[in-house]
Amino acid sequence: MAPENTSAPTRYVRPEIDVAALTAVLDGEYAVIRDLVRDNLTTYASVLDEADELTADAFRERVREIVVKMAATGQTGMGFPAEYGGGGDVGASIAAFETLAFGDLSVLVKTGVQFGLFGGAILHLGTRRHHEAHLPALITGELMGCFAMTETGHGSNVQALGTLARYDAASREFVITTPDDQARKDYIGNAARHGELAVVFAQLEVDGRSRGVHAFVVPLRAGGEPVPGVRIEDAGRKMGLGGVDNGRIWFDGVRVPREALLNRFADVTPEGVYESPIDDPDRRFFTMLGTLVQGRVSVAGAGIGVAKVALTVATKYAVRRRQFGDGDGSGEQVLLDYGMHQRRLLPLIARTYALHAAQDVVRGQLHEVFSGPGDDARARRRLEARAAGLKALATWHATRVVQECREACGGAGYLAVNRFAALKADSDVFTTFEGDNHVLLQLVAKGLLTDHASEFEDLDQLGTVRYVTGLAVETVIERTSAHKLLERVRDLLPGGDDWDREAGLLDPEYQLAMFRFREEHMLAGLARRIKRGIDQKRPAGAVFSQVQDHVIALARAHVERLVAEAFVDRVRAVPQGGERAALSLLCDLFALSAIEADRAWFMEHGRLTVQRSKAISREVNDLCRKVRPLAVDLVDAWGVPSAVLRAPDLIG
Amino acid sequence: MAPENTSAPTRYVRPEIDVAALTAVLDGEYAVIRDLVRDNLTTYASVLDEADELTADAFRERVREIVVKMAATGQTGMGFPAEYGGGGDVGASIAAFETLAFGDLSVLVKTGVQFGLFGGAILHLGTRRHHEAHLPALITGELMGCFAMTETGHGSNVQALGTLARYDAASREFVITTPDDQARKDYIGNAARHGELAVVFAQLEVDGRSRGVHAFVVPLRAGGEPVPGVRIEDAGRKMGLGGVDNGRIWFDGVRVPREALLNRFADVTPEGVYESPIDDPDRRFFTMLGTLVQGRVSVAGAGIGVAKVALTVATKYAVRRRQFGDGDGSGEQVLLDYGMHQRRLLPLIARTYALHAAQDVVRGQLHEVFSGPGDDARARRRLEARAAGLKALATWHATRVVQECREACGGAGYLAVNRFAALKADSDVFTTFEGDNHVLLQLVAKGLLTDHASEFEDLDQLGTVRYVTGLAVETVIERTSAHKLLERVRDLLPGGDDWDREAGLLDPEYQLAMFRFREEHMLAGLARRIKRGIDQKRPAGAVFSQVQDHVIALARAHVERLVAEAFVDRVRAVPQGGERAALSLLCDLFALSAIEADRAWFMEHGRLTVQRSKAISREVNDLCRKVRPLAVDLVDAWGVPSAVLRAPDLIG
Repeated sequence: MAPENTSAPTRYVRPEIDVAALTAVLDGEYAVIRDLVRDNLTTYASVLDEADELTADAFRERVREIVVKMAATGQTGMGFPAEYGGGGDVGASIAAFETLAFGDLSVLVKTGVQFGLFGGAILHLGTRRHHEAHLPALITGELMGCFAMTETGHGSNVQALGTLARYDAASREFVITTPDDQARKDYIGNAARHGELAVVFAQLEVDGRSRGVHAFVVPLRAGGEPVPGVRIEDAGRKMGLGGVDNGRIWFDGVRVPREALLNRFADVTPEGVYESPIDDPDRRFFTMLGTLVQGRVSVAGAGIGVAKVALTVATKYAVRRRQFGDGDGSGEQVLLDYGMHQRRLLPLIARTYALHAAQDVVRGQLHEVFSGPGDDARARRRLEARAAGLKALATWHATRVVQECREACGGAGYLAVNRFAALKADSDVFTTFEGDNHVLLQLVAKGLLTDHASEFEDLDQLGTVRYVTGLAVETVIERTSAHKLLERVRDLLPGGDDWDREAGLLDPEYQLAMFRFREEHMLAGLARRIKRGIDQKRPAGAVFSQVQDHVIALARAHVERLVAEAFVDRVRAVPQGGERAALSLLCDLFALSAIEADRAWFMEHGRLTVQRSKAISREVNDLCRKVRPLAVDLVDAWGVPSAVLRAPDLIG
Repeated sequence: MAPENTSAPTRYVRPEIDVAALTAVLDGEYAVIRDLVRDNLTTYASVLDEADELTADAFRERVREIVVKMAATGQTGMGFPAEYGGGGDVGASIAAFETLAFGDLSVLVKTGVQFGLFGGAILHLGTRRHHEAHLPALITGELMGCFAMTETGHGSNVQALGTLARYDAASREFVITTPDDQARKDYIGNAARHGELAVVFAQLEVDGRSRGVHAFVVPLRAGGEPVPGVRIEDAGRKMGLGGVDNGRIWFDGVRVPREALLNRFADVTPEGVYESPIDDPDRRFFTMLGTLVQGRVSVAGAGIGVAKVALTVATKYAVRRRQFGDGDGSGEQVLLDYGMHQRRLLPLIARTYALHAAQDVVRGQLHEVFSGPGDDARARRRLEARAAGLKALATWHATRVVQECREACGGAGYLAVNRFAALKADSDVFTTFEGDNHVLLQLVAKGLLTDHASEFEDLDQLGTVRYVTGLAVETVIERTSAHKLLERVRDLLPGGDDWDREAGLLDPEYQLAMFRFREEHMLAGLARRIKRGIDQKRPAGAVFSQVQDHVIALARAHVERLVAEAFVDRVRAVPQGGERAALSLLCDLFALSAIEADRAWFMEHGRLTVQRSKAISREVNDLCRKVRPLAVDLVDAWGVPSAVLRAPDLIG
């Protein structure tokens, strides 16, 4: 099919892709661990059938068994110190988790609960005594545990948890209590069946004084039965993830020794004196929470992995299935030769590549922060914001991709045997767990508002303490000048105010300037709106809730800019050749289809003329036609093991 | 929360809604049958739990039992003639089906298969002998049957089915054969277990000559076992709809008597002479298919019903659940007080009301066409196009609404006990069955291209024969003048070319003019593109596939215009008062949020200035704030029985 617009003077040469070479680019430094996971996935590929065939109980046992067997290969312990039997490589642990998302997602999520959440909390919130006591057994999976944070009445607001941990100086014990049903621990993975220990987040009370949320190691079961004072209920059937035993937990005066407090950031002396190296309670709380950031990085990577599986199946189906004949011989076209089908799938492939590049960046930052020499507060904050934002965009992307791909595979996509049923049901909750996406984007935006003000004044307190609590932004915004902000926005355009009207659409600098302009403009606009509300003496909460759609839009724009920058950087780092040429096409397709999707905003804000907006849509069509013949290579390069594609009716 | 824009001179008075009165408006002339279904749903509400608790086999039996019991109340037989035990009211049968969609969707789909597809085929394609033989028993559910159209290799392209029906004049029998696995009947409801008879669509061959696809009544089972020559396989577990026994069927020389041909539109004499009152084979085929249009009308209505359930749960949750405290007292706000949450849910409520109004129109047309005195070909064509288009928009709406509502209910929305798991898994296939949505929209667009040309010339042949086959549009387009079309577009603006720049955003005539302009402009643009391609001597199929995204966009614009007109008309017909005022707000919210969603297009085509585009977004926000206090009444008015809401953790 010839491109409609044949006016371009340079002849386009279709890139030749060496799939193995492209896989090597994508796998990067973690090729070895990723291949180990691929092998493990292939070895245990029968779990995808077992999810359908086994009873709920038997499937849970099977998933546990697989998790333990995979642990024995070293796959799941990469993030723990070598001295306890781990791999000592945080980045590799994330890469392994991303790859594990190609397979059954109950196995993935149980792995995340056990090694990421439970193990991560012991590692990052505990000290040597906790590490020595628990890490060796939990790394092998012999000791299964829970991360008991969320409560029925408190999902996103961890600071308001209701569970109590009162220090009894007489017995040198903490007494853990669930005061009411709103404070029961809820949706807790590993709770309904396998968890023996739990890291329980509770309000610490010492000598009658509340000290905020802290974490405690609390026994849940002994010999398979709940210990006295612990009541556990199965959370029941879920939309998916049937292999994960989620449950609810109530504590009725459960006593644990003083040493059960995970005391890296705060401790209680035997006599009942509270001590912490961090004076400010908010700051302490967010420092503790911040160490758990790898959960969000993991889920972001898992979302990207899920999207790869769905797109691999749908792409292979689309080059196999023939649309019905139209009487003139063109009916021999396969689905992917149709313009609409290209539009449905190819920009999603491009966006998946872009998110992959962004995930590489976040994983790298995580690795540095957790493996680097010192404690760089700025780097931690940047990582937390990036992880939150990417988690939101990547998991929404996964949900959208799975739905589009299911529909693109027609009725066969609805049969359970063809992978989509499980993929859809299992991954649906990604948008909610490890932080609801809308709440996460609000955190991102609040961080931006606060950071941004810091360029005008010293913001040490606000920057660190109120960074996440955020709603005190009005004090910041009051002092910033909207005028200055808009000047700064203009400076973003490398060739002056009119430059972007003439720059080539395929110039990455043009594309990035568009993303940057949008973000800065939204940030300035939001700051102005909040300031206006505050000036009118309206309560901050009401002001914030009224501009909430602008808040979310800003955060999306911010994260999308980071994604675009990561992808552009990534492409530039690849040596010239077929792989780079293909990635370059994808980068253009990602950037222009993202700009196209928001072209109304760009027109409304003077950054896009009507003519140029239409030219972008034509360019996206043209890019789709260029990516079309590369599509199968591009999905193959992700390296989803064929054993886990499991779509016999769709791709054989 | 005061509206941000307080410049409006007229004081806004919040409407008072009488919920029962609004329900009466919505239920319309079918209040009695809808209430019967509501009662039945409440009686059998335990099926929602049983879907989780029973084994697959037991649940299928339970669903069958409920379908039969509901049939005994007269609910499911409304569409059949009274002389056979039916209710003789086609419109009522659709209204009943729409209401049934509030409950378990396996019950809904099995009802649709049995009474709509199987029963409908017997009724509309058969003659008295078939009616007398089968209708009485199938109306009670005593005789269960299948609608065996779809084949593995032929989903949307029914004319290319592979199953053969050869007439053997010697024995006066048809011999039904499945030539290969691509021609096996697939995804057939009632096949795996309960179906005793099937209406089988097959290529009729008489005296060595192929006569195209016809329908035959073929026995599948006797005494619960497949009859000789029939092989049946269970389609296996699906994403949802576990209570429907979908299966695959192969025929190996199965002999049925000559009378098994459903002979309303064609017959074979005992001697083997083919006869039909409709000479043209394409026309005959589409006339036969056209009688089955009620399936699409039913699914559209079911999609709207599903959206109502999801929105009812999410809205009630959103006025109950409190967001976390923000330290200034505003934390007492419930979720629905947040701007973003309003933006997420309220335009979806408005669109659901709009689709309800459009469904009323299509149901009314269906009723007229099938109950009216004569055979009005034009009315039939209009109905078929509307049914196809509304089915696509309504089912996509359902998928989107269920997803948004699930996420808006957080982690609890993921638990199976809270209805969303089933709602999502069961309704997912709506976008695919009874015609893939993208394929349906292509049919709609082809109809528009053809119809549109008919204003310039006599189009009797094309209008009827090529209406659906469509791809011969080039012959039409060649003769039309793009220039004339654009003039016609201008005439759509009631106050001249500039009128819409000044008209009030809340003027329904302005809103409708925008929808009409978009549709006509897209139609003219598409015609031009196709003509250009044809002029360049490129094959029609390639041209069409390249403009496929424009085709889909046109069809969407067309259907959305019809929806807007239906809603505006509907509001105008309601007497002044609180209900009308509320509907009027919803109508504005629907229209403006639809225009907002496509504002890039309107700006690109000179119909919206930047200022006006921004004004529309502000107006949508303002409308959301006005609808907010009415939200619970608005969802209550849909009358989803509380027994089927089944979301104990979300709404108690």
